[in-house]
Amino acid sequence: MTLTIGVDVGGTKVAGGVVDDAGTVLVQTRRDTPADDVAKTRDVIIDLVGELAAGRTIEGVGIGAAGWIDANRSTVLFAPNLAWRDEPLREYVGKAVGLPVIVENDANVAAWAEFRYGAARDADDSMVMFTIGTGVGGGIVLGGELLRGAHGVAAELGHMLAVPDGHQCGCGRLGCIEQYASGSALVRFARAGARQEPQRATALLELAGGETEAITGHMVTTAAQGGDPVSTEAFAQIGRWLGTSLADMAQILDPQTLVVGGGVIDAGDLLLGPARRSYLDALAQRGRLPVAEVLPAELGNSAGVIGAADLARRI
Amino acid sequence: MTLTIGVDVGGTKVAGGVVDDAGTVLVQTRRDTPADDVAKTRDVIIDLVGELAAGRTIEGVGIGAAGWIDANRSTVLFAPNLAWRDEPLREYVGKAVGLPVIVENDANVAAWAEFRYGAARDADDSMVMFTIGTGVGGGIVLGGELLRGAHGVAAELGHMLAVPDGHQCGCGRLGCIEQYASGSALVRFARAGARQEPQRATALLELAGGETEAITGHMVTTAAQGGDPVSTEAFAQIGRWLGTSLADMAQILDPQTLVVGGGVIDAGDLLLGPARRSYLDALAQRGRLPVAEVLPAELGNSAGVIGAADLARRI
Amino acid sequence: MTLTIGVDVGGTKVAGGVVDDAGTVLVQTRRDTPADDVAKTRDVIIDLVGELAAGRTIEGVGIGAAGWIDANRSTVLFAPNLAWRDEPLREYVGKAVGLPVIVENDANVAAWAEFRYGAARDADDSMVMFTIGTGVGGGIVLGGELLRGAHGVAAELGHMLAVPDGHQCGCGRLGCIEQYASGSALVRFARAGARQEPQRATALLELAGGETEAITGHMVTTAAQGGDPVSTEAFAQIGRWLGTSLADMAQILDPQTLVVGGGVIDAGDLLLGPARRSYLDALAQRGRLPVAEVLPAELGNSAGVIGAADLARRI
Amino acid sequence: MTLTIGVDVGGTKVAGGVVDDAGTVLVQTRRDTPADDVAKTRDVIIDLVGELAAGRTIEGVGIGAAGWIDANRSTVLFAPNLAWRDEPLREYVGKAVGLPVIVENDANVAAWAEFRYGAARDADDSMVMFTIGTGVGGGIVLGGELLRGAHGVAAELGHMLAVPDGHQCGCGRLGCIEQYASGSALVRFARAGARQEPQRATALLELAGGETEAITGHMVTTAAQGGDPVSTEAFAQIGRWLGTSLADMAQILDPQTLVVGGGVIDAGDLLLGPARRSYLDALAQRGRLPVAEVLPAELGNSAGVIGAADLARRI
Repeated sequence: MTLTIGVDVGGTKVAGGVVDDAGTVLVQTRRDTPADDVAKTRDVIIDLVGELAAGRTIEGVGIGAAGWIDANRSTVLFAPNLAWRDEPLREYVGKAVGLPVIVENDANVAAWAEFRYGAARDADDSMVMFTIGTGVGGGIVLGGELLRGAHGVAAELGHMLAVPDGHQCGCGRLGCIEQYASGSALVRFARAGARQEPQRATALLELAGGETEAITGHMVTTAAQGGDPVSTEAFAQIGRWLGTSLADMAQILDPQTLVVGGGVIDAGDLLLGPARRSYLDALAQRGRLPVAEVLPAELGNSAGVIGAADLARRI
Repeated sequence: MTLTIGVDVGGTKVAGGVVDDAGTVLVQTRRDTPADDVAKTRDVIIDLVGELAAGRTIEGVGIGAAGWIDANRSTVLFAPNLAWRDEPLREYVGKAVGLPVIVENDANVAAWAEFRYGAARDADDSMVMFTIGTGVGGGIVLGGELLRGAHGVAAELGHMLAVPDGHQCGCGRLGCIEQYASGSALVRFARAGARQEPQRATALLELAGGETEAITGHMVTTAAQGGDPVSTEAFAQIGRWLGTSLADMAQILDPQTLVVGGGVIDAGDLLLGPARRSYLDALAQRGRLPVAEVLPAELGNSAGVIGAADLARRI
Repeated sequence: MTLTIGVDVGGTKVAGGVVDDAGTVLVQTRRDTPADDVAKTRDVIIDLVGELAAGRTIEGVGIGAAGWIDANRSTVLFAPNLAWRDEPLREYVGKAVGLPVIVENDANVAAWAEFRYGAARDADDSMVMFTIGTGVGGGIVLGGELLRGAHGVAAELGHMLAVPDGHQCGCGRLGCIEQYASGSALVRFARAGARQEPQRATALLELAGGETEAITGHMVTTAAQGGDPVSTEAFAQIGRWLGTSLADMAQILDPQTLVVGGGVIDAGDLLLGPARRSYLDALAQRGRLPVAEVLPAELGNSAGVIGAADLARRI
Repeated sequence: MTLTIGVDVGGTKVAGGVVDDAGTVLVQTRRDTPADDVAKTRDVIIDLVGELAAGRTIEGVGIGAAGWIDANRSTVLFAPNLAWRDEPLREYVGKAVGLPVIVENDANVAAWAEFRYGAARDADDSMVMFTIGTGVGGGIVLGGELLRGAHGVAAELGHMLAVPDGHQCGCGRLGCIEQYASGSALVRFARAGARQEPQRATALLELAGGETEAITGHMVTTAAQGGDPVSTEAFAQIGRWLGTSLADMAQILDPQTLVVGGGVIDAGDLLLGPARRSYLDALAQRGRLPVAEVLPAELGNSAGVIGAADLARRI
């Protein structure tokens, strides 16, 4: 049994764990992220790896972080939630901890974890995963390997075009799928619904203290689980859009399995039900050809640590 | 030097050729396709292969055909222009000609030819090709191999969603990119333009004998090359849509190279100019990240024979 | 009691009737339309008016025809189904029959009939009517008068933009509401549904002898009335689009009443149910403001004769 | 010569003036708006009218305010920028000042001023005006009278549907034209452009001190007038959308004249150029039919006072 360490660098927390070759997390720990200080964020990672490695034989370290990672899995080119710009994280951490290090995009890491040990573990060749959090991330496995792309930035699924001239995306374009199938879109749709038809959003508005602008994703999930009509419809809206993107993935990549993860998947069939219907509708023209199943992610928050640790095995 | 045979089965012609391991076509021949007769189409293929193989040492036969091919590259599941339904073409032809046979989708075959010997020959890992003919086809190479998908139907790029609730597609859905970036769309846009503003389409209408409904793709190309405003704008329209799909491919797959082929590419920069502009516009948010170049296909009609023959080398 | 004659010139039939000042048709008759012969079509009208006028005191003649009529209600500028181009119909028929004549667009005529004697007879000031036939026509009454427009072509409601870059319209543009809320759209949606999911369109396909392309609007109505899922959904599709246009009319004109007529309204709530829901959804943001009711037309095919005759009273 | 008083109640200022029957403002004055205090806002109006009326013979008072006004022009049903809800303004002010009072929506008032004395003064029957400020307002004149609607809320042109599933509108729906053709949209487009392509927005970013989020509508206008590419393109974007709405108005109402006003029109042809092109494009299918001209408003900020005063003449 060999051990590796996986580190998941988020905008608010850095989580780390020691993982065995069955994908089991043996020890886990977490620190706050000093997000606006490049040097301190590195130091937190190094300190955390040191703590986890103490007294153990570790083969390598995998680090997952939101952002663009270069094709060598060494340098963070750009991280939306952190101060990193062209940060040579692999080299820096590697030298400090004396272990081989690999850096990977966080949505890719999660997809890899689900492919190896989670929802897609029965797939041996291919899967596509959408991570539905505040934004929309993606990870693609083809031929049993994570697809990294010629410049390291494959699987940026959130910026596929969904609606020409649609809702303005933070990236500058109009109509990216991230504006229709994300947690932010869920909240936007729910707020709009509550403003338009408050009498159909009484449970949601109660959770928000009567303030439409105070509505959060958690509240929409809670209210929808209790049957609140506006909240349920907000999930149906993002689900329908997600379904069309899942169908695009089936048309383009024809994978064995499709997985949906990220925080919003806690809502389960409130999201997946409408997503599957719109997915199958969009593929109806294929007639009797089999289609990939759409499955919920299974590893939750641990996917980042498990996936990063497993990638460290493959350096 | 080893030789293989490539066969390109179209709706009106069956073309075949003997190809060497440098991708050179040594001999070529073609027959009419008896499109509505399953048995006769098989016989034409067998006869043509027999003729080409006579007196030569042939290693194998590759067959490209429009339609869905199963994941084993053996059976034509469905062919839109031919009578084949679940046709075990590999087995049937293989037995008849006594050679190993492989069957592949025609757009995949063309992409493979361009990857090996054409526009993308400098790429060693990945490329995506759009084939713009009457419809829109696609082929994807990743990790140096053609992407076939779990069910054999990857790279159906024509049925990505472009416009929600958009123009009705023959597949039953509204708004597939095939309705906006194909040769059919080119003709539709040009006819509409000529009907709306005949004074800006005088050259095009002259070619069509004054009959809007008589306008063909060839006429639009000829008129656009001569500067006809409506024809030029029709190319710009399909080019802009093509550009957004090329950008989607860069976001999803981040390939080394993007190639545009098919009959419509004869128009060159009339199509590629607007396509590249809308592609770069859509990727502008990536800032200083490098982006794949968009190149015109180089092998023209021979891509089918060359690609199929080359795939036969890899059975 | 005064009498006038109303004439309804369609692409296949010319209908005429003698109408009293309560909107009652006392006598009615019809002829075939010699649609491609300008002179003969005029003669048929004159002959039919002569027959109806014989032995009666007639105050005037109103003629309704598809197409653009000039602002003086005298000249047919363009008629899509007839050979008329700048046809001075008022003068020609007036001289021939020795009576005052008025010419009006057919959808305007129908709207006027419904305003005076049909679904909107309780409105004394304003109504908007959508006529859903093969295409989408419209008529607007404001201040108790038919809105004619500065150039005679107001209320061309079928060519409001519904979907930017949407389905190609016969007029040359992409995405006119006529491509989404008309009888042609109904048939297109139903055919697409039957092709994609034949098992959900068994009743419809039986009516069409198993031929998707043989499906007509009548068949869709019949099948939907019997519960055929694909046919019902096709009505829901055009109904939803109609609802958004009805809402646009409420935002722009705030009329007392909205009316939906034309052949497709025979389907009743199959069309009006979804239309009303999407209408109310779109106006939900208005909160407690009252909204105009959406009513089905009541006069059916007679609206043309009744409306034209009534307009003749107001020359 | 008779005199009336016009009052223009905005969210920050109340402006008032004495206007003669040639539309000339003889005296003008303004106060701050105590926007969140219903009673104080009324008192400011009354005080201002009292001051203006002192020593003059005044025939009546017209008050323009943003919001929904009831069909009797008496009660402000809802005002987005003020605390008024079902405020019986006509009665209250009328009693206090001892003069006949009329209350009207501010965009209607501006349209009326332009119809009587401004850009559309040559029209004697019909015009439609779009007011492009932070949002999009509208006013419609038909038959020489302001169109008020059955419930007083006609001409809410900002909430026509432009893009199905488009950018979220403050009203709760997706895709209202207000999200594409308003001053807010101008700023949103310019910010997005500056973020995506800062090197094409150097002049604009300099005005904003390098902060994308600090960009205002004034800065976009200034930069565009100096040739800044991103700013110019932002005007072209909102102009193109405005053009499609102008075309919808021509299809629906066929008015004599179309007018564009509001603060954004200060940019002149930067906005009107693209608007006119997209307007004419959209109407190209009408062929040789004449189309209404699109003119810039002429009365600027005074339109509110002039229009309200003129309406007071017609009580």
